[in-house]
Amino acid sequence: MLLRIDHVGIACHDLASKIAFYESVFGLTLVSQETNAEQGVSEAMLRVSPHPAGPSYVQLLEPLGPDTPVGRFLDRRGEGIHHVGYCVADIEAALAEIETAGVRLIDSRPRHGSMGAAIAFLRPGDVGGVLTELVQQARRDNS
Amino acid sequence: MLLRIDHVGIACHDLASKIAFYESVFGLTLVSQETNAEQGVSEAMLRVSPHPAGPSYVQLLEPLGPDTPVGRFLDRRGEGIHHVGYCVADIEAALAEIETAGVRLIDSRPRHGSMGAAIAFLRPGDVGGVLTELVQQARRDNS
Repeated sequence: MLLRIDHVGIACHDLASKIAFYESVFGLTLVSQETNAEQGVSEAMLRVSPHPAGPSYVQLLEPLGPDTPVGRFLDRRGEGIHHVGYCVADIEAALAEIETAGVRLIDSRPRHGSMGAAIAFLRPGDVGGVLTELVQQARRDNS
Repeated sequence: MLLRIDHVGIACHDLASKIAFYESVFGLTLVSQETNAEQGVSEAMLRVSPHPAGPSYVQLLEPLGPDTPVGRFLDRRGEGIHHVGYCVADIEAALAEIETAGVRLIDSRPRHGSMGAAIAFLRPGDVGGVLTELVQQARRDNS
């Protein structure tokens, strides 16, 4: 069902400085930067590397305010890994299959994610404490 | 420098039940299970999917005791994502480059990791709270 690790989502206080850090220290390439008001974050996608099967990303997340999911995460835990996202071919089919297996969904229907993807989160309490996201990409970015 | 996300390391209390969960709910394939006494963990690697550029994994980590890095993590934070590992072609060159960029290393020299890989961790305090691991795989598993 899962095609690959699409991204690791990392919560931070200052998006601009973290983008610069990942570009300069690890040589990642910034491919997208956008604000997602629904999720209360300003976010950046940095491509780890291009490869034939599709790239993976570091997703940097700066909250739009303290009373947002990422804002509360930072307040509780400080900066660090917030979630992991896996690529799937058909997100609606994957959600149905996962729910049948007994995992509760945060998003029973996909919503808007980075770079036009359809995304949905699963309840971390049902996935061993891991906030898990499914990602169906809008298009394959092989550049 | 970074070739792809190699794995996400997930701390858990019960390795066997978490292996069964990731196999049954997400369809992952268990490819390796070993004990790493040096790191104080019993661990399993589950392949997310095979693809031409090399697979990525979910790494499940059960501590060998409470007074181990993963044991302390579980005590402090509970089950969840512990670290992220990135694949590199030449781990010694990557460590030298990263250290020159001002990131302190937990492991100044590579040590033994899962499936014969050479691995090294970077200090999370210098990487925005993210425990970051470099992985130079012993061999390319394209099966």
